[in-house]
Amino acid sequence: MSDAMTPIERAHCVARDQADPLGHFRERFHRPCGVIYLDGNSLGMMPEAVPSRIEAVLMREWAEGLIRSWDDAGWWDLPLRVGAKIAPLIGAREGEVVATDSTSVNLFKLLAAGLALRPGRRVILTDPGNFPTDLYIAEGMTRLIPGCELRSVPLEEIASALDQSVAVVALGHVDYRSAEILDMPGITRAAHAAGALALWDLSHSAGAIAVDLAAAGVDLAVGCGYKYLNGGPGAPAYLYVRRAHQGKIRSPIAGWWGHAEPFAFASSYVAAPGIARMLCGTQPILSLAALEAALEMWREVDFALLDEKRTALGELFIALVERFCPDLALASPRDPARRGSHVSFRHPKGRAILQALRAQGVIADFRTPDLLRFGIAPLYVGYADLFDAAERLSRTLPRV
Amino acid sequence: MSDAMTPIERAHCVARDQADPLGHFRERFHRPCGVIYLDGNSLGMMPEAVPSRIEAVLMREWAEGLIRSWDDAGWWDLPLRVGAKIAPLIGAREGEVVATDSTSVNLFKLLAAGLALRPGRRVILTDPGNFPTDLYIAEGMTRLIPGCELRSVPLEEIASALDQSVAVVALGHVDYRSAEILDMPGITRAAHAAGALALWDLSHSAGAIAVDLAAAGVDLAVGCGYKYLNGGPGAPAYLYVRRAHQGKIRSPIAGWWGHAEPFAFASSYVAAPGIARMLCGTQPILSLAALEAALEMWREVDFALLDEKRTALGELFIALVERFCPDLALASPRDPARRGSHVSFRHPKGRAILQALRAQGVIADFRTPDLLRFGIAPLYVGYADLFDAAERLSRTLPRV
Repeated sequence: MSDAMTPIERAHCVARDQADPLGHFRERFHRPCGVIYLDGNSLGMMPEAVPSRIEAVLMREWAEGLIRSWDDAGWWDLPLRVGAKIAPLIGAREGEVVATDSTSVNLFKLLAAGLALRPGRRVILTDPGNFPTDLYIAEGMTRLIPGCELRSVPLEEIASALDQSVAVVALGHVDYRSAEILDMPGITRAAHAAGALALWDLSHSAGAIAVDLAAAGVDLAVGCGYKYLNGGPGAPAYLYVRRAHQGKIRSPIAGWWGHAEPFAFASSYVAAPGIARMLCGTQPILSLAALEAALEMWREVDFALLDEKRTALGELFIALVERFCPDLALASPRDPARRGSHVSFRHPKGRAILQALRAQGVIADFRTPDLLRFGIAPLYVGYADLFDAAERLSRTLPRV
Repeated sequence: MSDAMTPIERAHCVARDQADPLGHFRERFHRPCGVIYLDGNSLGMMPEAVPSRIEAVLMREWAEGLIRSWDDAGWWDLPLRVGAKIAPLIGAREGEVVATDSTSVNLFKLLAAGLALRPGRRVILTDPGNFPTDLYIAEGMTRLIPGCELRSVPLEEIASALDQSVAVVALGHVDYRSAEILDMPGITRAAHAAGALALWDLSHSAGAIAVDLAAAGVDLAVGCGYKYLNGGPGAPAYLYVRRAHQGKIRSPIAGWWGHAEPFAFASSYVAAPGIARMLCGTQPILSLAALEAALEMWREVDFALLDEKRTALGELFIALVERFCPDLALASPRDPARRGSHVSFRHPKGRAILQALRAQGVIADFRTPDLLRFGIAPLYVGYADLFDAAERLSRTLPRV
């Protein structure tokens, strides 16, 4: 047998798991028996640190501390504290990130604020392949703000569509279907050259691939707490405002948590200094505390190792699926430097295949019309998991 | 001793607690040892039903069920399900309430939507005593929407300020300082007579006093989940849209949870039918589940009894404080029909008094400049609690 025909052995995958310098992180997650979970790009697994933290919030902080816990248990500072824990994952500096609201609401705030920072410019520039809710929010903005226009052009035309009318270029860092990594530094540079702001949605990148907002000069960003950050179902999202913009930026949703003196109960609004001005209403403390507990482990993560493992896992899974399941067509970039942390394949019976696969204990997700998405969260997915998943997939295919 | 001079006996209060037909609800809350809690108007006590529900969400639904729980555990329906549980507390009909986001974000959505429902009218009418964050949100709207104007007039001038330019009258149902109940039916009628919409903030009324949105013909409403609804710190808020408006209303923050087909991942936004169109981004499931668990007991609450007890408690506390602490000046309406569920007093040393009282185990809160607010949540505050609180207050006063 030639090298190309050598089957990948399960034992080899097991050996790679045993040698994995990040392998110990797997033990920090609750892994249900008999399940291979390849959907961390939709909802991350539960870190074992979460339940004890939540129990403390319930029994000690809420039930016993009651209203006093806003100060005594640091509830009041949670959005900024959680933001500070997300910052190192996305190349943000101190005081540039706050955890709050949902990704959609944060995107709304930053789009409106971005338009206000570029008076006279009324265009939000995006590509039609951007994440749907991001498109919806931008579309809603055009109904709300007279003259505001959504210009949606294919990625390769973004640079040429950048003119003096563009206020904000809004894109997702990693394509939610293909996992293609967009050229954040290049597009941000082009936006700046045209006098526009660059706003990136990091939901499908942060926690899975290296993100460096500072190096890329990004102006504004949003992201999700429940995918690769493992903050739990519907965990609060976060937003980033580059320090240089913080003096001038104003949130369109000016609520009391963003007030300079929230407890003065003044009748007029004065924006808080720094990123806190992007806060609005009271935040869900239980959900924020779960996210904070989930983020603790990231202090110990070596990002170079994470990147290496993500690449290796992706390469392995593509090789396995192409070997075992030749009917599936790769829908992600083959170049690992251009591919995020999930791998997608196309098949006309994608939905039925994934349903059958789920019955075999392998959880991945389907996106219309024909996309099988396999999320490979490098902190808890192992090499043997991928072998077993591909093997079960190959057994499932002929039966669908 | 004349009747007016007869001291109220503690034994009499204990007897009233023993005869209280709502007394058994006290046992459904975690009541910290040695604490008399008169701050449920800021953060409600923890219902004992919450921790087991949250444990199930964590260990069974998230940790084991993972992504499957969006369907299998009904996460997807939580905002509507929780909304349906709030509806009977505020006189709303089926499908008119959804639990989501924060009160501030919901107010933003409804103000913008209300302005769009009244084209040609650009004025938001309110009174300067409205809850500060409500004023801030309205003020922010004037910066965002060209021509939008905030008209702030004293309550007694609302009726005469209602002209053809007013799109929305936005007021709080119960004044957060004095507990005065505003005339919801009368003001709503006046708004309608002028062609305007009425938007009420129920944060300080729902769960404490009878609210009947349907009878009053209210168009739009928002409210808070963590005060009298006991949903936990920063619990999600809710919003109400009268059925007649649901066909035409559009959320300015058009996110995927409000889409008619959220999983079609269509590139264009189509609003969901009904109240679901006011949803936006993914909601914090832990915090929503806590709120749902907290709401369960309300099915068993007799609202006439609740109203009776609230009145009796308020009358008792005013009598006790006026007897024991003549230096405190009542800052709430004396007429119980015009007073919500908290009672406020003024004292120049209010802040210091409440700090010293807290050291005695009695928790109430202070509002600038001189207001002592005592929240009396009728589901878990008892008559003897109020006797003890007033007695400790009287012992505290001379020492401040």
